[in-house]
Amino acid sequence: MRLFDYPMSGNGYKVRLLLAHLGRSYTYVPVDILRGETRTASFLEKNPNGRIPVLELDDGRYLAESNAILYWLSQRSPYWPDGAFDQAQVLQWLFFEQYSHEPNVATARFWLTVKKLENTAFNSELLKQKQAQGRAALEVMERHLSGRDFFVAGRYGISDIALYAYTHLANEGGFDLEPFAAIRGWLARVRSQPGHVTIHEWRAA
Amino acid sequence: MRLFDYPMSGNGYKVRLLLAHLGRSYTYVPVDILRGETRTASFLEKNPNGRIPVLELDDGRYLAESNAILYWLSQRSPYWPDGAFDQAQVLQWLFFEQYSHEPNVATARFWLTVKKLENTAFNSELLKQKQAQGRAALEVMERHLSGRDFFVAGRYGISDIALYAYTHLANEGGFDLEPFAAIRGWLARVRSQPGHVTIHEWRAA
Repeated sequence: MRLFDYPMSGNGYKVRLLLAHLGRSYTYVPVDILRGETRTASFLEKNPNGRIPVLELDDGRYLAESNAILYWLSQRSPYWPDGAFDQAQVLQWLFFEQYSHEPNVATARFWLTVKKLENTAFNSELLKQKQAQGRAALEVMERHLSGRDFFVAGRYGISDIALYAYTHLANEGGFDLEPFAAIRGWLARVRSQPGHVTIHEWRAA
Repeated sequence: MRLFDYPMSGNGYKVRLLLAHLGRSYTYVPVDILRGETRTASFLEKNPNGRIPVLELDDGRYLAESNAILYWLSQRSPYWPDGAFDQAQVLQWLFFEQYSHEPNVATARFWLTVKKLENTAFNSELLKQKQAQGRAALEVMERHLSGRDFFVAGRYGISDIALYAYTHLANEGGFDLEPFAAIRGWLARVRSQPGHVTIHEWRAA
């Protein structure tokens, strides 16, 4: 397998973290999103939506969207639950992550830490909106995690992996996790899982 | 089953359309999102994220996120494919829909047609951004549908249902579908599926 990815990407890190848990070997292909490398004709053949991560299977097929890749890799593993309703709930949290969390928490971090936002009145108003909506998403997580160890079925799985990726970097987007005690406890439980790798320390096997 | 939903919502319409195809009966519970009815304590117990649609199962469990509901309802039906990689590709398009399509195509429609956008410099700049990003999403669909009848595995399924919901209403968000011939052909194929109901004509069975 080959993983096309940008090293600072939390969406890519989700996939690297699951691959580390699974002990799967793969080739890492860094793609520089800041230099337009996801918009070249050759990259658009892999993913017409021009985004990383993209997983290339050994038979040459491509799969895009970080959470679809998590689904694909987790099948028949302990990171995907057995029960049909548990599975649907995992997907509920994966869609929550991509709709309510990532566009706010990750985008604020991207602007502030990765890209360095151009400071215009429009951009700073937009950043304030993203941060307010990101806090609302963190509050939803906090409420759900109060009294629960993990997001679904009491067990660590791909909904935790997906939500961990940008939540543990939220401070880089200007979010303060101090008021979120349940989230902080959960972050520590995720970090203590066997085979955990950080966004900085992972290495393709 | 009970479906908590807002009649003009395309996200809700996805679920209504699949339920119509499946011939499943359910009780429709209208929720007025414009009057804050998704932010009451009783609604937040159903979905802490305060959004419709929410499906209540007969045993009282709740499931949120339109595309997670599509997944749940489509299992062991012709609208969910058998092959593992086809399944992963369905999810790829469902995540594309919630990340790259809905926040732009549906949001532009919501502002212009449902909520009537307050016309400030900030909002009109934001609308222009949404429309540019929405056109980019439509271009990704157009490229994929050129030479294909449906999104995955040559067969109508939940990725088509999810993407149809707001694409067929794109004009209400200021999008012109005239240049998108492959999309227009696909919209007609979706409309001709047995059991199709429009967003206006559906009725809870």
